[in-house]
Amino acid sequence: MDARGWVPATAGNFSVRLGPGRVAVTRSGFHKGMLTPAALMVVDEQGRPEDASLRPSAETGLHCGIYRRYPEAGAALHGHSIPVTVLSRRAGDAITLSGYELLKAFPGLATHEASISLPVVDNDQDIARLQAVVEARWDAGAAKIPGYLIRGHGVYVWGRDMPEALLRLEALEFMLACELEARKL
Amino acid sequence: MDARGWVPATAGNFSVRLGPGRVAVTRSGFHKGMLTPAALMVVDEQGRPEDASLRPSAETGLHCGIYRRYPEAGAALHGHSIPVTVLSRRAGDAITLSGYELLKAFPGLATHEASISLPVVDNDQDIARLQAVVEARWDAGAAKIPGYLIRGHGVYVWGRDMPEALLRLEALEFMLACELEARKL
Amino acid sequence: MDARGWVPATAGNFSVRLGPGRVAVTRSGFHKGMLTPAALMVVDEQGRPEDASLRPSAETGLHCGIYRRYPEAGAALHGHSIPVTVLSRRAGDAITLSGYELLKAFPGLATHEASISLPVVDNDQDIARLQAVVEARWDAGAAKIPGYLIRGHGVYVWGRDMPEALLRLEALEFMLACELEARKL
Amino acid sequence: MDARGWVPATAGNFSVRLGPGRVAVTRSGFHKGMLTPAALMVVDEQGRPEDASLRPSAETGLHCGIYRRYPEAGAALHGHSIPVTVLSRRAGDAITLSGYELLKAFPGLATHEASISLPVVDNDQDIARLQAVVEARWDAGAAKIPGYLIRGHGVYVWGRDMPEALLRLEALEFMLACELEARKL
Repeated sequence: MDARGWVPATAGNFSVRLGPGRVAVTRSGFHKGMLTPAALMVVDEQGRPEDASLRPSAETGLHCGIYRRYPEAGAALHGHSIPVTVLSRRAGDAITLSGYELLKAFPGLATHEASISLPVVDNDQDIARLQAVVEARWDAGAAKIPGYLIRGHGVYVWGRDMPEALLRLEALEFMLACELEARKL
Repeated sequence: MDARGWVPATAGNFSVRLGPGRVAVTRSGFHKGMLTPAALMVVDEQGRPEDASLRPSAETGLHCGIYRRYPEAGAALHGHSIPVTVLSRRAGDAITLSGYELLKAFPGLATHEASISLPVVDNDQDIARLQAVVEARWDAGAAKIPGYLIRGHGVYVWGRDMPEALLRLEALEFMLACELEARKL
Repeated sequence: MDARGWVPATAGNFSVRLGPGRVAVTRSGFHKGMLTPAALMVVDEQGRPEDASLRPSAETGLHCGIYRRYPEAGAALHGHSIPVTVLSRRAGDAITLSGYELLKAFPGLATHEASISLPVVDNDQDIARLQAVVEARWDAGAAKIPGYLIRGHGVYVWGRDMPEALLRLEALEFMLACELEARKL
Repeated sequence: MDARGWVPATAGNFSVRLGPGRVAVTRSGFHKGMLTPAALMVVDEQGRPEDASLRPSAETGLHCGIYRRYPEAGAALHGHSIPVTVLSRRAGDAITLSGYELLKAFPGLATHEASISLPVVDNDQDIARLQAVVEARWDAGAAKIPGYLIRGHGVYVWGRDMPEALLRLEALEFMLACELEARKL
């Protein structure tokens, strides 16, 4: 992801569900292009660290929010690309994607004729408040889409395991890059 | 091709004609940036697998359609770049390329003064129906061009062998990237 | 940085403060994508070489200006990207960045709600005169921002050590790339 | 150069002057991203091969034209980037570059305040005729600029040796990429 410019500076973080109530998540302040095991830590689904001497990333709360809501989710990725940043800054509360073959990477979409409405929420340094906004969007009908954008900040995508989460992230980044190009024409 | 962003997610697939009636083609659901021999399978020119336990990619029918029509074709590539996706979504039923030195990569064009009309067909999850549309375009005069675009989906290009197919794909992607840039000016 | 296109030709240079009054800086005329120890030299904070047989880069004066002004600065980077060049050529005397999560990479900004006004100064082959202009901008209130742009030329960014300087450069390049894309829409 | 997309398909070629009347040049039809010694051959300054069994690239005539005109030239590069292709297709008979720090990579320009007028000539499959047009431009005053563009085709740049030629190519490609971006704003 670093080579593609998706995790500039210390932006971006990743997580994997290890089992019931245990989530491995990247720690705060590490550059994600140079990850080592020391950059990972284990928290419960409320974001509380197993090793109390380690500080979880501020955005751990968003990863845990995904695992609490989606029992089938096994991995979550947070990226920070140029198309995501530029489009989310200009979007209203959703970005619609339709007519792309790659929509088939998302669950329940067997055809490119589908359309998805990707939620966009305002950025907020208060992560608990931000997570509450995300949950309200899920309750209002966005829960079928395994991803959302935070304005000027990045994207969250999840899947049953890391390959599926990565595949969905690749598909989403590709379609958003196409949208950005198309809007320049 | 992965490094260039031409095969995002599981998009894209490749094939090679092994001999009369035998085609090796990439299997469904593998990421094409991490190909191993297990990701390949052999089908006949109707797309029927030699090993009935393996499921061919849905798009195998398009590869076989190329081999049935073009006896000289030895390799075919299906890519999925941003310029192909963006331009095909906005195009009518063809994209015209003219005045590019790289047109010489195509058969029968000894000069950049030539012009090619690259067919664009609508995407369709029914591959047999899509292939019938492609054949109708070939019958209507497009058969001289060793490639076509599927709207919002990707490009098919073929050649006598894999180096020739790859060279044509590179030339085509380059010219389409130029077209996309030029249309922003 | 070379792989990202940030140091084309012999453009770009780097420095590290070794201790009081000693700065290691890249020498003139070396390609920064192929650095070896021989491409580095040591100067004092006025830019005078320890080894009088070596010629410091013309821009050594700008590095030394940073170390004289900022006692906490330990490393400085000068890059030369396309977004920096294009935007600085069109800017007035500053570029404002606001609403980006990555603003948090800069000191004193704990939130994306902040805004920074990045100074832009005219290019000048007389480096002492250019440095005087930069110092006037710092005196006029720009000193809180650990970076500035030289029109049509590049960016200077610094930090307590090389990882911090690099992180700030990455953050700044990312936000300027977003600005460039946004202005095309 | 391949990694930067400057030599798509078999486009692009390189040469080095070995001594009086001897030039090593890339052969026709090889992919320049996979060069081996077998892809090189030796010609005289009229483009005649030492080994008559080898066919020189069609564009060998343009390399030899440079070596005949510029006694100090030791290496020449022909690249084929997207900015070169797109801008040369839209340009008149020259592209003006001014205000770029990287102009200093060109001979006789000690300052960014200079301006160069880069010749653009029409593409022509008759290389002798194309070379005559280039020579007419040199005679008309363009000879001070160590490079020119061929419309829809590519760029030629030369220098005393390969590092200088490569540095000038990098500088030129960077400035043309900036011009392309600026024209989208």
